[in-house]
Amino acid sequence: MGTSGGGVRPVFGAVEGGGTKFVCMVGTSPSDVVDEITIPTTDPVETIGEVIAFFQRPRPDVQLMAVGVATFGPIGLDPNQSTYGCVLKSTKEHWSGARILAPLSRRLGVPLGWDTDVNGSVLGELRWGAARGLDSALYLTIGTGIGGGIAVNGEPLHGLMHPEVGHVPVPTLDGDSFPGICSFHGRCLEGVACGPALAARAGRPVPEISADDPIWDLEARYLAYGISAALLVVSPKRIILGGGVMHQRHLLPKIRRDLVEVLNGYVDMPELREGIDSYVVPAELGQKAGLYGALVLAERALASIGKVPFSSGREVE
Amino acid sequence: MGTSGGGVRPVFGAVEGGGTKFVCMVGTSPSDVVDEITIPTTDPVETIGEVIAFFQRPRPDVQLMAVGVATFGPIGLDPNQSTYGCVLKSTKEHWSGARILAPLSRRLGVPLGWDTDVNGSVLGELRWGAARGLDSALYLTIGTGIGGGIAVNGEPLHGLMHPEVGHVPVPTLDGDSFPGICSFHGRCLEGVACGPALAARAGRPVPEISADDPIWDLEARYLAYGISAALLVVSPKRIILGGGVMHQRHLLPKIRRDLVEVLNGYVDMPELREGIDSYVVPAELGQKAGLYGALVLAERALASIGKVPFSSGREVE
Repeated sequence: MGTSGGGVRPVFGAVEGGGTKFVCMVGTSPSDVVDEITIPTTDPVETIGEVIAFFQRPRPDVQLMAVGVATFGPIGLDPNQSTYGCVLKSTKEHWSGARILAPLSRRLGVPLGWDTDVNGSVLGELRWGAARGLDSALYLTIGTGIGGGIAVNGEPLHGLMHPEVGHVPVPTLDGDSFPGICSFHGRCLEGVACGPALAARAGRPVPEISADDPIWDLEARYLAYGISAALLVVSPKRIILGGGVMHQRHLLPKIRRDLVEVLNGYVDMPELREGIDSYVVPAELGQKAGLYGALVLAERALASIGKVPFSSGREVE
Repeated sequence: MGTSGGGVRPVFGAVEGGGTKFVCMVGTSPSDVVDEITIPTTDPVETIGEVIAFFQRPRPDVQLMAVGVATFGPIGLDPNQSTYGCVLKSTKEHWSGARILAPLSRRLGVPLGWDTDVNGSVLGELRWGAARGLDSALYLTIGTGIGGGIAVNGEPLHGLMHPEVGHVPVPTLDGDSFPGICSFHGRCLEGVACGPALAARAGRPVPEISADDPIWDLEARYLAYGISAALLVVSPKRIILGGGVMHQRHLLPKIRRDLVEVLNGYVDMPELREGIDSYVVPAELGQKAGLYGALVLAERALASIGKVPFSSGREVE
């Protein structure tokens, strides 16, 4: 990337929007962070106002070329609909219908990239993390909820909306009477295997469940079922697992073992036999995956000026 | 498309390879079929030999520009591996490891397109059938087996291999003690909902199960679970259902109803409420979807000369 003249260096802005905080950065890569801030998630007017103020701070040495936003969903991704750039019906108070891109565009006047937090994470992991060099991966976060982002041909997967993955149906294991906690589906994958489901099943917080508790065998098997569904549908070239529950380091080997068992040889690829340890891998960028992925979204927005709303590249006011 | 001079018109060849027959055609679209043949599936040498002989027949008015092959799988799709153009480990006798594209390339000397039968079907339905005008769809065939093809951005979805969909895990419905018939997974979607599973459950052939038999309620609910998994992973813009079991016309409305119930409002899109009848639709091209999709594969092969093996466009011997 060249400079834009006068010693002013072109940079991108990145936003990862989460349920408790919005993290913003200015820079071009994980090793080139010019500025960063963490903003608590309150209501859209206040939070987005602080995001805008961060990007409007005077930074004489750099010029903001585009901003990427990777946020909790569901979000509107169809450039032909009025919901583009908005949060859709959300369980997060104040945020259903919130317009994110419109105020950013009005105040910052640069092209804007836009996707889910987990689609952002898979882009970040493809560029700088656990799927470097590949053009296809599934990123699954297992934490307060379960959600998946998918890249195909190097691009975030979109369709009717975006990948979701967390609420896929799973079989009930023999003897498991836990009713699940999903308010929509009861015993979907998220309902039986997210962090709060684990805690409800155990009757104590996840970090207090010992590594040899048999609850982890159930957890690994349910996750293996959910991952096998995603694998059989979209056939990613790598599967990346992140989120708070995966901080339990003993869980990943159990998930790999169970995924091989659940598939039972049906998909006859070395990645699902002796190569399983390099096929199902931990996230490398940790909590920053979505933020770094938002840098990639910014870069893509700059490259697609005129193709989507909020990419007009108007001058900064 | 222009002519190639001398009144000789450029055309494509298409092959749909199935477990019982290979159907081949020469033409450019469903309304422009120059020639067609049905060849019984025996062993690869004999069957592929007859396919080659069909395309080598003298046809003075047309010139074969490329051939597309959509076949039963699993198949090798990675141009960097030796298995490209081959059937992988297959339950079909004689066909594990069979080389399909190599002999076609050697004898026909034209660029060759290559994909699964169901990825072919989704391409055919996108171009001429139930998903005209869209760039994203899931095609699910429910017959002797269950299998899915997926298009994203107008292209067949590939990754580690290709979409599979049929063997996704599904919950067991209350009181259902049927053990499933899948030799790999017992009670996966195919194991409980393919045609032979229906017949085994009913104790009689599928066409003899009356439309008011409660077995269809189980069938619809299991299919809804499997479809919901695919929907939550890949978010297709349309879902197309084909295959012999779908000839039971009363089944489709039950599947639509159950899909809405299973999702339970979680995906808040009109397509999954009042728009369900135009979101989950029957295949329009019937048994010809894969064959017509193979025409699209041929067209793509011609456009990508040099990018993949068997696209070198060598002269006909």
